[in-house]
Amino acid sequence: MVIEFNYSVVNIIILFFCLISDHHVNWKCGEVQALSRVRDVRMKGFKELTRIEEALKHYFQTVEVKKLPSEETSILEAIGRVLAEDVKSEVDVPPFDRSAVDGYAVKAEDTHGASKTNPIVLDLTGTINAGDSSNAELKRSETIRVATGAHIPKDADAVVMLEYTEKLSNDRVEIYRPITSGYNVSKKGEDVKTGDVVLWRGTNLKPQDIGILAAIGRRDISVVKKPIVAVTSSGNELVEPRTQLETGKIVDINRYVLISAIKDVGGNPVDMGIIGDESGVLTDTISNGLERADMVLVSGGTSVGTRDLVPEVVNSIGKPGIIVHGIAMRPGMPTALAAIGSKPIILLPGHPVAALTAFNALVRPIIARLIGAPVKQMHNKIVRATVERRIPSRPGFRDFVRVIVHITPNGFIVEPVRVRGASVISSMVRANGILEIREEKEGVEAGEEVEVALFRRLEEEEN
Amino acid sequence: MVIEFNYSVVNIIILFFCLISDHHVNWKCGEVQALSRVRDVRMKGFKELTRIEEALKHYFQTVEVKKLPSEETSILEAIGRVLAEDVKSEVDVPPFDRSAVDGYAVKAEDTHGASKTNPIVLDLTGTINAGDSSNAELKRSETIRVATGAHIPKDADAVVMLEYTEKLSNDRVEIYRPITSGYNVSKKGEDVKTGDVVLWRGTNLKPQDIGILAAIGRRDISVVKKPIVAVTSSGNELVEPRTQLETGKIVDINRYVLISAIKDVGGNPVDMGIIGDESGVLTDTISNGLERADMVLVSGGTSVGTRDLVPEVVNSIGKPGIIVHGIAMRPGMPTALAAIGSKPIILLPGHPVAALTAFNALVRPIIARLIGAPVKQMHNKIVRATVERRIPSRPGFRDFVRVIVHITPNGFIVEPVRVRGASVISSMVRANGILEIREEKEGVEAGEEVEVALFRRLEEEEN
Repeated sequence: MVIEFNYSVVNIIILFFCLISDHHVNWKCGEVQALSRVRDVRMKGFKELTRIEEALKHYFQTVEVKKLPSEETSILEAIGRVLAEDVKSEVDVPPFDRSAVDGYAVKAEDTHGASKTNPIVLDLTGTINAGDSSNAELKRSETIRVATGAHIPKDADAVVMLEYTEKLSNDRVEIYRPITSGYNVSKKGEDVKTGDVVLWRGTNLKPQDIGILAAIGRRDISVVKKPIVAVTSSGNELVEPRTQLETGKIVDINRYVLISAIKDVGGNPVDMGIIGDESGVLTDTISNGLERADMVLVSGGTSVGTRDLVPEVVNSIGKPGIIVHGIAMRPGMPTALAAIGSKPIILLPGHPVAALTAFNALVRPIIARLIGAPVKQMHNKIVRATVERRIPSRPGFRDFVRVIVHITPNGFIVEPVRVRGASVISSMVRANGILEIREEKEGVEAGEEVEVALFRRLEEEEN
Repeated sequence: MVIEFNYSVVNIIILFFCLISDHHVNWKCGEVQALSRVRDVRMKGFKELTRIEEALKHYFQTVEVKKLPSEETSILEAIGRVLAEDVKSEVDVPPFDRSAVDGYAVKAEDTHGASKTNPIVLDLTGTINAGDSSNAELKRSETIRVATGAHIPKDADAVVMLEYTEKLSNDRVEIYRPITSGYNVSKKGEDVKTGDVVLWRGTNLKPQDIGILAAIGRRDISVVKKPIVAVTSSGNELVEPRTQLETGKIVDINRYVLISAIKDVGGNPVDMGIIGDESGVLTDTISNGLERADMVLVSGGTSVGTRDLVPEVVNSIGKPGIIVHGIAMRPGMPTALAAIGSKPIILLPGHPVAALTAFNALVRPIIARLIGAPVKQMHNKIVRATVERRIPSRPGFRDFVRVIVHITPNGFIVEPVRVRGASVISSMVRANGILEIREEKEGVEAGEEVEVALFRRLEEEEN
């Protein structure tokens, strides 16, 4: 009942939008009509399914997902974290004019006309090594030996590489080549100037970003807190992994998959364990999760059946409750997007492959809102590959087909993983990629070129 | 001196190979000749440069890099780790025949001839919910209500979906559709059979792999130990990050970049600090690193100059010492691959961009050997993009060009990052990808389509 009510609200909102909006009319209204066509018995009680993008759009319009607060961390711990401040440099990099090569610091004008056959001889007055503090000054026709990284002496403006010189004695050096002012000198502030913003908030910190933070003298940095995500599995049949099972019991796979997926995207999972299909326990666990975490994932108990209490329980806890229930995707259809206040609760299907697919398609973008930055994808790479035999799909649904990409003399070939029955999880383990077939397609034809998101290396690939 | 000696050995080995080998003759000897052409003053004292693949090949032929031992870990901690065992299942998944849908368990033959206009009526004798242990048996013309995931009663062989039935009373159900044996039943062992190998050693564990481990009842698993990598920076000019620097001193960027990069690929860095250019300290620190870690990275002091002691020190510690010094790559040329016994020591350039480029091209493949599996790449994605203006490169060298890929109405466009002077690190921070230009090319032409390895999202991209 509650669910149907929510659906009506969604439709009224969208239809209202159709009426008041100018340039969205066709698209939005078309969407509603298209959705209403995606109805048959396989929808298992869902009145209507919402496309992935539409579901997320509507969700973010309804729920103001709050960006997490920041915390200070050492730059040595900051790799992979999301920057929470715009970082402005208080220094110049390099901090002084320094030599880019091993050679002789000169006044460039002193080298004019120098050549191999007609070298210019300069007076060698000293040496500056990297790290040396030197007040040496250079007079006309003088030179000072400088190492890579060394401070350039006052009044020198260029460095002749060692290879274009010959040391005649301890105080005389021949120069074979003319150079221009500034040559082989890294100028103070050439890489970063005082006041430059070197990194913007929202940056996912990479090794080079940690490098520039060190370069400008920052040892600590403000990063977005890691999202804390509570995970629970609902089902009287579920038990923890073991090899001896009582009849009727099955192992809870989803919590293990989801906790791993959360860690994989840089979140901190909170394990809320297995809960039975009982409203009291469900209410307590979800409420507890909302207190302890920034987001709650509940898997199982989301399809519309007699014992599927979870959506009702979520609606009873608070507003807005269930926002979208039933997504036009395969697998993953029974997913529901909900929230209490601004805190997301996502109800994922009980089937492990469906739960992981829904995590990738729907939970990642919500975590991205929490951290204010893109979230690491499951795939490492996208490749173009040719479909060998027709792969059917269902119009109106986004199909996520588990595939194996092979390297052949004719290029990359895609083959769907043969699914034995419902395949609890093994089809996902045997796949090396996912082929997304969009809603407007009725499958992909033999010979068609497609993009596959690979999450494992191809067998023949070198590291 | 020592370095030259080593070079001679390398050449003798390669030339010897040319003489004794049949089908490698042209390639290997061609390589030596090609390499000898890559010589000019910019080689800064290197007699010869080795191409990346050749350097790694020769390195792995010379050093038997040992795979790290394994350790037991909880499957909840195993995401991203490398599996150290072939995992064989001791159980069937699912562990019993169970219903894939909400519906009525039947003997399929009892449904023959059923239709909407001519339904078949069966006697409803009970209900089995998910998790229930039931010994119920089904007689002819009987049915039992089953929930998704529930144990199928003995002698039932199919399940009719709820949507094709009508409950007439508490003990009578109408069936509207005939089904065949096995329909809507997930058979015992259909996903995994006892004795199946579900995962092979060397697998980089993904969420779905953790799921299948849970499914077969494994709570702990043997994984390859994380590689411990000691990191030190050599240079009298180097100091820890700070904003007030004495003249001549510069911040050590490389240790911060490398420690972050090691964490990024799943290793455990050991920070050995900054060391001065003094053989005693260098020897002690590198020896200490060899004791504490599986691999040692030393940055700075690797080009062939007066104060570059590091290669000499490494050779003095033990055999084989320096194996390849001088790589035909830009940036990163002064990199050296070395080892003491089977333990790798990699000498990286002092320039941060060069150090990180060499880490990606040369250190990652060596870490991959240590863990016996591919190592996470720096890039998330490879895109095809069009070069707007000619990008020059140097034949014989692998060029790693820092680029920015833009999304335009005409597709992806590549533009090299404008480097201000030597760019300590900012060019790498401003880039969103790397364009590799291979040794045989003399640059890429305007209009040419290339592949770019992206390590940041494109600006306009959605999560």
